[in-house]
Amino acid sequence: MVSIDINCDMEEALRFDRLTEQEEILNYLTSINIPCGFHAGNPHTISRILEIAMNHQINVGAHPGYPDPQSFGRRSMNLSMKEAYELVLYQVAAVEGMARALGGELNHVKLHGAFYMEAAERPDLSEAVVRAIMDINEDLILYAFSGSSLVQVALEHGLQVAEEVFADRVYLPNGRLAPREMEGSVLFNQEDIFKQATQLILEQKVQTINGGTIEVAADTLCIYRENVNTISFLRDLHQWARENDVVIEPIR
Amino acid sequence: MVSIDINCDMEEALRFDRLTEQEEILNYLTSINIPCGFHAGNPHTISRILEIAMNHQINVGAHPGYPDPQSFGRRSMNLSMKEAYELVLYQVAAVEGMARALGGELNHVKLHGAFYMEAAERPDLSEAVVRAIMDINEDLILYAFSGSSLVQVALEHGLQVAEEVFADRVYLPNGRLAPREMEGSVLFNQEDIFKQATQLILEQKVQTINGGTIEVAADTLCIYRENVNTISFLRDLHQWARENDVVIEPIR
Amino acid sequence: MVSIDINCDMEEALRFDRLTEQEEILNYLTSINIPCGFHAGNPHTISRILEIAMNHQINVGAHPGYPDPQSFGRRSMNLSMKEAYELVLYQVAAVEGMARALGGELNHVKLHGAFYMEAAERPDLSEAVVRAIMDINEDLILYAFSGSSLVQVALEHGLQVAEEVFADRVYLPNGRLAPREMEGSVLFNQEDIFKQATQLILEQKVQTINGGTIEVAADTLCIYRENVNTISFLRDLHQWARENDVVIEPIR
Amino acid sequence: MVSIDINCDMEEALRFDRLTEQEEILNYLTSINIPCGFHAGNPHTISRILEIAMNHQINVGAHPGYPDPQSFGRRSMNLSMKEAYELVLYQVAAVEGMARALGGELNHVKLHGAFYMEAAERPDLSEAVVRAIMDINEDLILYAFSGSSLVQVALEHGLQVAEEVFADRVYLPNGRLAPREMEGSVLFNQEDIFKQATQLILEQKVQTINGGTIEVAADTLCIYRENVNTISFLRDLHQWARENDVVIEPIR
Repeated sequence: MVSIDINCDMEEALRFDRLTEQEEILNYLTSINIPCGFHAGNPHTISRILEIAMNHQINVGAHPGYPDPQSFGRRSMNLSMKEAYELVLYQVAAVEGMARALGGELNHVKLHGAFYMEAAERPDLSEAVVRAIMDINEDLILYAFSGSSLVQVALEHGLQVAEEVFADRVYLPNGRLAPREMEGSVLFNQEDIFKQATQLILEQKVQTINGGTIEVAADTLCIYRENVNTISFLRDLHQWARENDVVIEPIR
Repeated sequence: MVSIDINCDMEEALRFDRLTEQEEILNYLTSINIPCGFHAGNPHTISRILEIAMNHQINVGAHPGYPDPQSFGRRSMNLSMKEAYELVLYQVAAVEGMARALGGELNHVKLHGAFYMEAAERPDLSEAVVRAIMDINEDLILYAFSGSSLVQVALEHGLQVAEEVFADRVYLPNGRLAPREMEGSVLFNQEDIFKQATQLILEQKVQTINGGTIEVAADTLCIYRENVNTISFLRDLHQWARENDVVIEPIR
Repeated sequence: MVSIDINCDMEEALRFDRLTEQEEILNYLTSINIPCGFHAGNPHTISRILEIAMNHQINVGAHPGYPDPQSFGRRSMNLSMKEAYELVLYQVAAVEGMARALGGELNHVKLHGAFYMEAAERPDLSEAVVRAIMDINEDLILYAFSGSSLVQVALEHGLQVAEEVFADRVYLPNGRLAPREMEGSVLFNQEDIFKQATQLILEQKVQTINGGTIEVAADTLCIYRENVNTISFLRDLHQWARENDVVIEPIR
Repeated sequence: MVSIDINCDMEEALRFDRLTEQEEILNYLTSINIPCGFHAGNPHTISRILEIAMNHQINVGAHPGYPDPQSFGRRSMNLSMKEAYELVLYQVAAVEGMARALGGELNHVKLHGAFYMEAAERPDLSEAVVRAIMDINEDLILYAFSGSSLVQVALEHGLQVAEEVFADRVYLPNGRLAPREMEGSVLFNQEDIFKQATQLILEQKVQTINGGTIEVAADTLCIYRENVNTISFLRDLHQWARENDVVIEPIR
């Protein structure tokens, strides 16, 4: 039987007065990723998201990003490996400590934005990130781009990994995502997104930008809250899962 | 035999290229307080200070402040008690986690600036701070203004406290510090500062602004790096301690 | 014939990728207020909003806030009058200079959040704000809470004022807004909001929380983008205006 | 007769309580550069530096940097040209507006840190910076690294330029600075620095790292406040200037 985790970045949670509207979506997710205060988030939003998540028995992850709120962590920053290590250490420590203090537990770490993309490609950065996570807590799970350098380095160090796939991003033949700047790199049609999601989950394959098909390990599916009518998409996906012997359940 | 701890705020450590010059002073201190990234500091400076401190077997403390770098945490911010709790939680968790990851251990927490002053006066704020520290780690020591509400609340909750005194700030008859804005509230003459320091340590008393003398519990003496020629002051204080059976040693 | 300006805070414009979705609302507004980089916003969002606004021939205003992104500028900050003056100076200068450089013109200034509320009540703060605006450009218009100290101080100094009213906030008998924390202080029912808007515009009156009616000068109506289905509300308001000889037009 | 401007970055001015100690150095400078709030600085420090500078009839410049306070603007940030343009626009507009409001005048713009270095090398970035400055005020002077792409692009666009040289940085044979990471790239010996300064001013030449000598246009000499006993160095330089018919005077 196939099982899949569904994760979502809680980046919307920037504001004091916006958090309640996010509650409904949590019924359809099995993992959430919490911005740690650098590209977005602050102690109050982190605490609010943790409280809400604990009511839903959902996997809680730290979502560290570059210290660049102006670009929402989307710009490369030329960090030294030491700085990258320290950046992950600080952000994961903060959210893990808060989770424990509030009676919960941190389950995983997923990088954000340019940090996510660059650590997927560069073994030196992968190494800095993996060491930081393990120096905080060796039992954490790393959510990392499927098939990336980061997955490999993590496994070599003995860190548990969940390989992540994307329902609404177009894949290149080499298994990477087509860059956002590229025309057609993001799927907007809900049927296309649904088709890609189910193919990824059921076959562990995906159709690439030039029509071929490649194999992709899929442990967790990333859902963006913005490109589609997310709630109805998620309802449909749960319905489809029930009909196809797919279990949507948290990775642990 | 009298013993005293000497602590210093590492607020200077704002910049990548300034940290080495701070090493000498660590030979004369027994505790340091590390800005946690809100009024000052960032993952890199925290990591650097932790590394330097571990070479000197010195008490390492988190130094949480208000999220107001523009004023260096010196302005009041009207936080709710929940926000104050979350603010301490996040900052202490981040520095404690980093200390552990780097092979050290967090010893204490000391608030900064307006947060220090307001938590000393307001029992509700004292309560929020004490709960946050204990929810992170019940073995931490709170460095708090001698005789303050914060000391009292901490002791009621079973949190260890080091009562803090100041060598270069003038005391009011009620045991509080004369506000910085008040003429004559800060001692600049090195002899006056030395005299107040030794009186505090040896007699647990201090002369107030109007000439009287009050009792003050003194577990740890705060040294500012800026008002005096700090290194020579500290050398003299260590010399004086040896001659007067005073042990300068870390609180544990 | 009655005329009214409709203004809206562009606080949503926090992110690089969200600005296009804001375009439609500009067809129904006559003034917008641009966060200047302290409670929200940055050079890129300011530039994007300015460009979009210039295509719609709409009044562009600077929207300075307290330097507190964590609370979105909603917390009091105990600034000195000098700091308040400097804070307005910097933010208005930045946005005015950008508007001019991009071929536009800054029309007005409206304070944000806690700054808006406190300057409305405190004559010393009103004075600091008015002096800062006039020291940048004496031809700017101040959008200020109707009947407030800020309106009075501005008029005394010869600064043009547009008195602002709110469609979805409940008024107290003394003409102030019921604080957000108070039960029933915000109208959520679209009919109630519409009724209050039209009463304010047509009669320059508003029904207060205890059922009475007070007079309120109404030069500009503030629309929040979040409480109602704003676009349809604005369409209805424009329709109503046409039917009732009300001209919706920018203040100049 | 030879004339030279001496400029200094006011980066120290980070804190509310540090500014007075900076006054003495202003007697020996002819230009200062004010951090604009992104890598360092805020409305209060900008206003304080402007006030002090106006008492000394010294050239006041804006000193825009990357939005990265954690590294003090020393890291590359992969900005698009549009973002670079907007970044300069905002920062220069803010400081220029404040200077005018406080009764002064902005004289020049000098980039900071990684922004300074990258704009010196890359014509596309040079272009974005030059356009931003000219869109704010065509009469501003650009202080730029002697012989760089930025100098060339500025002159092509008709922007006035002051070519800048460094007394304590070692030059490569191609006229660039040896990178800080390179051993021996910074002069620490006061005699060496003095010798390089006087050679640059009098001969418009400098000895390079491999012993050769190259020509360098020198309109303004950058003094760091940290590497040498700056005040005594500046006193000696003024004395030497008087004895060698060199006029130390502001560029205008």
